[in-house]
Amino acid sequence: MNDTGRTAESIYRKQGLGASSGWGSRPALVVVDFVNGFNDPDVLGGGNIPAAIDATVTLLAAARQARMPVAFSRIVYAPGADSVFCMKIPALASLHEDHPQSQIVPQLEVRPEDAIIRKTQPSAFFGTDLAGWLIRQGADTVLVAGCTTSGCVRATVVDAMSYNFRPVVVADCVGDRAPGPHEASLFDMSQKYGEVQTLADVLDRLVHLRA
Amino acid sequence: MNDTGRTAESIYRKQGLGASSGWGSRPALVVVDFVNGFNDPDVLGGGNIPAAIDATVTLLAAARQARMPVAFSRIVYAPGADSVFCMKIPALASLHEDHPQSQIVPQLEVRPEDAIIRKTQPSAFFGTDLAGWLIRQGADTVLVAGCTTSGCVRATVVDAMSYNFRPVVVADCVGDRAPGPHEASLFDMSQKYGEVQTLADVLDRLVHLRA
Amino acid sequence: MNDTGRTAESIYRKQGLGASSGWGSRPALVVVDFVNGFNDPDVLGGGNIPAAIDATVTLLAAARQARMPVAFSRIVYAPGADSVFCMKIPALASLHEDHPQSQIVPQLEVRPEDAIIRKTQPSAFFGTDLAGWLIRQGADTVLVAGCTTSGCVRATVVDAMSYNFRPVVVADCVGDRAPGPHEASLFDMSQKYGEVQTLADVLDRLVHLRA
Amino acid sequence: MNDTGRTAESIYRKQGLGASSGWGSRPALVVVDFVNGFNDPDVLGGGNIPAAIDATVTLLAAARQARMPVAFSRIVYAPGADSVFCMKIPALASLHEDHPQSQIVPQLEVRPEDAIIRKTQPSAFFGTDLAGWLIRQGADTVLVAGCTTSGCVRATVVDAMSYNFRPVVVADCVGDRAPGPHEASLFDMSQKYGEVQTLADVLDRLVHLRA
Repeated sequence: MNDTGRTAESIYRKQGLGASSGWGSRPALVVVDFVNGFNDPDVLGGGNIPAAIDATVTLLAAARQARMPVAFSRIVYAPGADSVFCMKIPALASLHEDHPQSQIVPQLEVRPEDAIIRKTQPSAFFGTDLAGWLIRQGADTVLVAGCTTSGCVRATVVDAMSYNFRPVVVADCVGDRAPGPHEASLFDMSQKYGEVQTLADVLDRLVHLRA
Repeated sequence: MNDTGRTAESIYRKQGLGASSGWGSRPALVVVDFVNGFNDPDVLGGGNIPAAIDATVTLLAAARQARMPVAFSRIVYAPGADSVFCMKIPALASLHEDHPQSQIVPQLEVRPEDAIIRKTQPSAFFGTDLAGWLIRQGADTVLVAGCTTSGCVRATVVDAMSYNFRPVVVADCVGDRAPGPHEASLFDMSQKYGEVQTLADVLDRLVHLRA
Repeated sequence: MNDTGRTAESIYRKQGLGASSGWGSRPALVVVDFVNGFNDPDVLGGGNIPAAIDATVTLLAAARQARMPVAFSRIVYAPGADSVFCMKIPALASLHEDHPQSQIVPQLEVRPEDAIIRKTQPSAFFGTDLAGWLIRQGADTVLVAGCTTSGCVRATVVDAMSYNFRPVVVADCVGDRAPGPHEASLFDMSQKYGEVQTLADVLDRLVHLRA
Repeated sequence: MNDTGRTAESIYRKQGLGASSGWGSRPALVVVDFVNGFNDPDVLGGGNIPAAIDATVTLLAAARQARMPVAFSRIVYAPGADSVFCMKIPALASLHEDHPQSQIVPQLEVRPEDAIIRKTQPSAFFGTDLAGWLIRQGADTVLVAGCTTSGCVRATVVDAMSYNFRPVVVADCVGDRAPGPHEASLFDMSQKYGEVQTLADVLDRLVHLRA
């Protein structure tokens, strides 16, 4: 954490931010936008996203063993569709259903029972049936991996909390194009929206969940 | 902008982030959570929030002259109610309907025709009728003032954009407890979610809107 | 059921409508709009609504004994607020926070721990935090009482199902201004959106839930 | 209208239901679930749905001439996906992306610029980006055609109104499996949620819109 973060943290502590929201008893895993285009620094990715995908391979294996429900989100626009989001980031509009850049990275092996959430906005909840899917799974806790930390991950975490699911951001499994926004959003999420935990801590917890 | 911001910006520019979403033709003003408790550094406020409130007095006067619809949000919890958000920030739970800390600051003179949006989550859209109110006003653009920049302002901007309203963050009229999260969120919003403009630029635009 | 209902039912059965959605394991009770104004045939009520309120007194007692979470919805408009719904039914606009007609009927004794859902639209989910409240309770099943059957009850049931909660409409505990719309909506809900069960059957189930 | 309807109407009139919500100035057309499976009495259709599709061919042509934005909804489930709605109507679960029964009927010629709204619940708004699409079009009025009148049409109309769009149900262009639920929902919608107008009246209005 840099100086800026430390200054904020002392103010936040005084006001009581950053308390723990913990885990409930039934976690689900939501993997946000780990598609080819966000894994490629020449398209929409870069930074520590490839490393976060590698760490998510391990997280996903543990989630499978714990028999957790798993959802993957993808940004998918219909040809010709637009949005204010596409005004800001025009490259999003090319992420069509069959475009190679909008396919989930092959390292993360999607299974037929997983949910695939097609979205057009930052949050994986907005205009999708993710909330209903989590309710149907009986989930009360949402583990979040994916990218970008300061974009779709953060928006998804805010909405997960707004629906009263307990968010757990797996710090090693989220990535961003650049370190500044990544760190700033990890800080904000840890102070205001959920738990931010290392992969090691989450894996340890999942082992006990299985037991 | 610090080094971190500059590094991110060069990556973002290469990938085409940060394009302009502009203004539509029918703006509305949404003032987020400028209540006594967020104006007080001993409660939930501090930083540049008081300065942002002062600047919003000017913005509000211009909005009145331009006959723009105006909405104010407040966080209001029922006694005994809880949420995951309150787990993270326990002081929120005391913001009841009649609590002095949850009243809109007196400098901002609310009028009977303004909408008051009671909310329990970061975004002024979540679990409220703000989207329907904006639709009823025929708005296509949402000017955003309020606090905190990295919290409820940002969440509101993300949702405004997700509904395809064009967000315009009035930089002088949003404030946060600490400068780091404030700057980081202004950067993120300018790159991904809407326009970030100075009060002077917005006032100039509103004068022409009136003409 | 009249001839019309019987004709529809044979078609529906052939196409496989009307299968059972059953109960999950954690029900919550949602009481829709049982306020003074809807209990009064000279205001917005009449028909079998008073009888449904009486039956709901019994249902509520059983829900308390089963320690079920309970929510009550009310229509509450701010003075001066409007909506397309108020265009269709202008009397709704007078249901302000403190208006006697918008208070929950005294027969139903609200407790401090109950949720009060203020709404402006037919569904108790629309623009409210009811979904988040149910998630926070860990509910998977929503028992519905209230009025009107063809209006706010039905809209609430459709949304409950759309979020993947299992709706159970307690037939004796829902009422409407006139028998035609009441019967037609009970039929539709039983065929397409959830269980429609008698109070006796629901009470029997709740006793076993407690055991 | 049958006796039941007449009885209800007199009560409703006394209480002021059934007032006019009218048209705004910028209508869009939403065609709900006119797919092959709902056009076929041996699958999920029958009744007056084929006639409603025929009438919608005329409505669609007028909408094209008036340069109205047009959206079509389809129910699309992923293989293996489920929902409480599928519990009630198991045949819905077979409406996959590429299934012939889930394709829009060929009489209605979809154009590349139309929006296709994939949905899993009754309302075309629930878990979709229809609200955002309408906002992006600047629409304030939603003409509704489709099926079934008592199911997905009605749920879509309730949500359109809840977002403060003005619904106009084109009576000749909505259909249902059986006449009872069709008539009952037309009555309810005309009394509580929007305008119910004949195709002839709507066509007349659209001609003047073009002028």
